[in-house]
Amino acid sequence: MEHKPQTDISTLGEFGLIRHLTENFPPRNASTLKGVGDDAAVLDYGNKRTLVTTDLLLEGIHFDLTYVPLKHLGYKSAVVNFSDIYAMNGRPRQITVSLGLSKRFSVEDMEELYAGIQLACNIYGVDLVGGDTSASLTGLTISITCIGEGEEGKIVYRNGARENDLICVSGDLGAAYMGLQLLEREKHVYAGESDFTPAFEGKEYILERQLKPEARKDIIAELDKRHIVPTAMMDISDGLSSELHHICTQSHTGCRIYEERIPIDYQTAVMAEELNMSLVTAALNGGEDYELLFTVPLGSHDEVAAIPGVHIIGHITAPSLGLYMISRDGNEIELRAQGWNSLSEESDDKTTEASE
Amino acid sequence: MEHKPQTDISTLGEFGLIRHLTENFPPRNASTLKGVGDDAAVLDYGNKRTLVTTDLLLEGIHFDLTYVPLKHLGYKSAVVNFSDIYAMNGRPRQITVSLGLSKRFSVEDMEELYAGIQLACNIYGVDLVGGDTSASLTGLTISITCIGEGEEGKIVYRNGARENDLICVSGDLGAAYMGLQLLEREKHVYAGESDFTPAFEGKEYILERQLKPEARKDIIAELDKRHIVPTAMMDISDGLSSELHHICTQSHTGCRIYEERIPIDYQTAVMAEELNMSLVTAALNGGEDYELLFTVPLGSHDEVAAIPGVHIIGHITAPSLGLYMISRDGNEIELRAQGWNSLSEESDDKTTEASE
Repeated sequence: MEHKPQTDISTLGEFGLIRHLTENFPPRNASTLKGVGDDAAVLDYGNKRTLVTTDLLLEGIHFDLTYVPLKHLGYKSAVVNFSDIYAMNGRPRQITVSLGLSKRFSVEDMEELYAGIQLACNIYGVDLVGGDTSASLTGLTISITCIGEGEEGKIVYRNGARENDLICVSGDLGAAYMGLQLLEREKHVYAGESDFTPAFEGKEYILERQLKPEARKDIIAELDKRHIVPTAMMDISDGLSSELHHICTQSHTGCRIYEERIPIDYQTAVMAEELNMSLVTAALNGGEDYELLFTVPLGSHDEVAAIPGVHIIGHITAPSLGLYMISRDGNEIELRAQGWNSLSEESDDKTTEASE
Repeated sequence: MEHKPQTDISTLGEFGLIRHLTENFPPRNASTLKGVGDDAAVLDYGNKRTLVTTDLLLEGIHFDLTYVPLKHLGYKSAVVNFSDIYAMNGRPRQITVSLGLSKRFSVEDMEELYAGIQLACNIYGVDLVGGDTSASLTGLTISITCIGEGEEGKIVYRNGARENDLICVSGDLGAAYMGLQLLEREKHVYAGESDFTPAFEGKEYILERQLKPEARKDIIAELDKRHIVPTAMMDISDGLSSELHHICTQSHTGCRIYEERIPIDYQTAVMAEELNMSLVTAALNGGEDYELLFTVPLGSHDEVAAIPGVHIIGHITAPSLGLYMISRDGNEIELRAQGWNSLSEESDDKTTEASE
């Protein structure tokens, strides 16, 4: 990107920039009656429920542009919001994107960011319907709100888990966190070297999980096809342990999960070994997996087990039994609700947080 | 506030802070099925249209905490979003609030901010249904999304103005801008003096317009009572001149407005005189008025003129006639679409922008 001519954003101004960036986002959903260009977007959800979720991403806190390409950042910023809508058993339909931009960003930079947002919108069938763009004194701020639809009686909350329900997760865990550790390591190695080639070979999967995560639209479709409505569900953004605490607290239950059943990719394991970090800690507390964590009644066991990529990792218990993981050697380890908490004391060092 | 004990935000953590700040926001709208506490809020708009608008406010760009109390900032942040929904002839029903917070903010600071948001929600009957809270490396970031309802056939866009329509504005213009000039002046005088009392006497109105603006819910109700649906409408956030450009561009029309008919409060005029600034420029380009600008067919003249606080300031013309203001001495002055543009070159100095 450094070789392309860069256009100062002031040449377009606020309205010009919005127009320029949003002109390639034609609406595709019937629920989008009016998108960008007025005081508000106009949507028609008919007899469907409207779902709303929002995320604020700040440079230096949530992303580091020294190793995150802007297109990937745009893609991920959109997808993490879609993930929240799927986690309600809904379908994302519209997003608004607000940007705060410091002077170091050019029009071409924003085109990259929007190319990523557009790719995500294309793949997930979502319309960009509005936003706000502003100058910023420092860095890049991205605020995305996603609106989606859900059907009455099929929306899944965090509070519906019942004793003996099975605990399921999609995909595998800890990879995005290990991808981040790899990027951080290479960034430190890179510092001071001019012709540095980062050592990413054989680690493509964990990098992709960190830089270009996907929302589990496919799992929601599989559940729907099998007429399974989970009793509770959420997406894993802060880490399995933290999310289990949310579900158990809101459902007034406890849980038992089994270490040996937690799905982990081999690249995640290799990276943990290489960095001498605890693999299970990465899987429990790493976060940013954007996999689905859900509970279903015991009777759905066979049907759920048949869905590709879904793993049954434990079960819901009475609240008095607490939240525990049974380790490979049979010990009960209490699950802590730490997760990735950018407002906690440890926020300066993500490594510390997940290294208990 | 400086005398109260201050609680470090890290003592609550992200989830604790959200819970603490949002526990006093019980839902009041039938359309709010589920608010804070899950991956997404759940709304039911039945056969109504869903309206969505969003605003990003950054410290140092949109507000200066040296003279803006946090409670006022919370109130204003919410109200400016409500204003966008009213500007579609809709009714605001829900908001999400996302915050980026640097370490200098305490729990008590955020309580102040949320007290302002809550006051606005109480007055306008809006539910807080979600948000995101994060650490920030610098300053305060506020991102608010407002969801509202509109009735099919009664939603008013910017593109419906027709030749000969009357151009109407509510309230008066330029006061918020003059309030800002006053605050900036007192801030500069204050610099270096320890026992300084700012000279605000007799200027309460322009200060209130800047610090605690209201959305024109009342005008929307009056229009509805009289069965008037404007042909085009928007709220005046960037300045009358800029908003007229939006309406005329989207409606493919021109316009004529009359300087002598532009409503201006006497405190605005006194302040402009005191600061030796152009009063009409403040009214045309000052912005942040949050009044409604709308057009109605000529036949609605008497009914619109009877609404308290509505002023007919001109009419819509053929596009070839351009956008002009007729000055008091009969000259035609072309309206420029500058407004308040934080991404333009002049963004470092708001004074420059409106002083043509």
